[in-house]
Amino acid sequence: MDSDLLKNGSTHQIEVRVEYNETDGQKRVHHANYLNYFERGRVEMLRAGGVSYKQFEATGRMLVVTEMNIKYFAAAEFDDVLTVTTTLVDAKKVRLYHQYRIERGDQLVVEATSTIACVDENGRPCRFV
Amino acid sequence: MDSDLLKNGSTHQIEVRVEYNETDGQKRVHHANYLNYFERGRVEMLRAGGVSYKQFEATGRMLVVTEMNIKYFAAAEFDDVLTVTTTLVDAKKVRLYHQYRIERGDQLVVEATSTIACVDENGRPCRFV
Amino acid sequence: MDSDLLKNGSTHQIEVRVEYNETDGQKRVHHANYLNYFERGRVEMLRAGGVSYKQFEATGRMLVVTEMNIKYFAAAEFDDVLTVTTTLVDAKKVRLYHQYRIERGDQLVVEATSTIACVDENGRPCRFV
Amino acid sequence: MDSDLLKNGSTHQIEVRVEYNETDGQKRVHHANYLNYFERGRVEMLRAGGVSYKQFEATGRMLVVTEMNIKYFAAAEFDDVLTVTTTLVDAKKVRLYHQYRIERGDQLVVEATSTIACVDENGRPCRFV
Repeated sequence: MDSDLLKNGSTHQIEVRVEYNETDGQKRVHHANYLNYFERGRVEMLRAGGVSYKQFEATGRMLVVTEMNIKYFAAAEFDDVLTVTTTLVDAKKVRLYHQYRIERGDQLVVEATSTIACVDENGRPCRFV
Repeated sequence: MDSDLLKNGSTHQIEVRVEYNETDGQKRVHHANYLNYFERGRVEMLRAGGVSYKQFEATGRMLVVTEMNIKYFAAAEFDDVLTVTTTLVDAKKVRLYHQYRIERGDQLVVEATSTIACVDENGRPCRFV
Repeated sequence: MDSDLLKNGSTHQIEVRVEYNETDGQKRVHHANYLNYFERGRVEMLRAGGVSYKQFEATGRMLVVTEMNIKYFAAAEFDDVLTVTTTLVDAKKVRLYHQYRIERGDQLVVEATSTIACVDENGRPCRFV
Repeated sequence: MDSDLLKNGSTHQIEVRVEYNETDGQKRVHHANYLNYFERGRVEMLRAGGVSYKQFEATGRMLVVTEMNIKYFAAAEFDDVLTVTTTLVDAKKVRLYHQYRIERGDQLVVEATSTIACVDENGRPCRFV
């Protein structure tokens, strides 16, 4: 991966619109679906930095989530447009630390942090670069 | 695959309980999720016939859905226990034709038919047996 | 609903990018997820015609899928950009008939038709307009 | 809710079998789907204690997840049978603290903790009992 992408503190924003199938019987986004928004945030942050995650996997490496910590502050609903801000907090040899902030306008909806590991086809840790 | 399984008209039943994440803002099972119940029906029908679909895929073949026709009659809700009846209507060299019926008690919820093809790793049709 | 939207033959296109969570162990879009793409197509077609489906539901009516027929021609993969073309084939008093075509570039991926009914809070058929 | 259920340290186990649609292109359970397994664990723990979560929501209250912390240790695959152990760590007036442990045989797959709040129809905190 391009070393520029691995600069601590780099940040990226995307917008996602909540789809009907992402809501549940509480008429809110089901809490598991925010993890998909975080993933989209990471994929688009990589793309903005010139890296296609699809091509990255084609080299025989995978990024896997090893830890995820989420705080839910408000309920997003169908058709809401959410801003997902993804920040690369730290990049070690085989681990990436991200922070996420999902907002609807100026209202905080969800905050999270994650640890991502790079593994090879046998599941062994390997370097990104 | 065991030829017994490919006997036309063989039928199999499973029960599924609707999970919260399968409902949507209408407080009903989102209509896309019934396809997952059909798939579970096929997997368990194979298992009942002595075939693990996981092991089948390990031989380098895959079953892929090429057609699906669904009629929705009633809305299933969270926590409902549904009976999924799967019937193998016909088995050709490289295609399987199934019929599905999902009921809640004696109420019909969904009826469907599907065509499944067997393909090899390059996506070319191949025989089951 | 705006009567213009109910003109037979009106058509609308959106682009969707396949997300990682929409793929399955066959490295393809899981066949149930195309129904979500169709739904997005309908929601955006309504919006393009000046109707927010969220506001429509706030009037106490719902659109529910009563029939869906799908043919799968090719496998879409993670990160593919797909074009979803939604056509309103016919609009009756309480029913809408749509056609869908999903393509990746000039390759046909999926074709489908659906029947949608308008129901009130008690599940009884009601008129759109 | 029955006060017995709110006894700290009470524990409950369910088995879940990984479905095809829960896997992703890495041939593993997509990391967001474990949250659905936790939810199933809570729903069945309540049921074992004599409480139907569906009936609980019918009283105008909802349980909403306000925090979730997950550690992923191993990858579960299609058709794996997983044991989900749910423990009620602490119950305050309007909050429940759970712990989860998902295992495949004697291998640890995922560990998590969550905070659940009880809210009324307007989203205001309310008491369980």
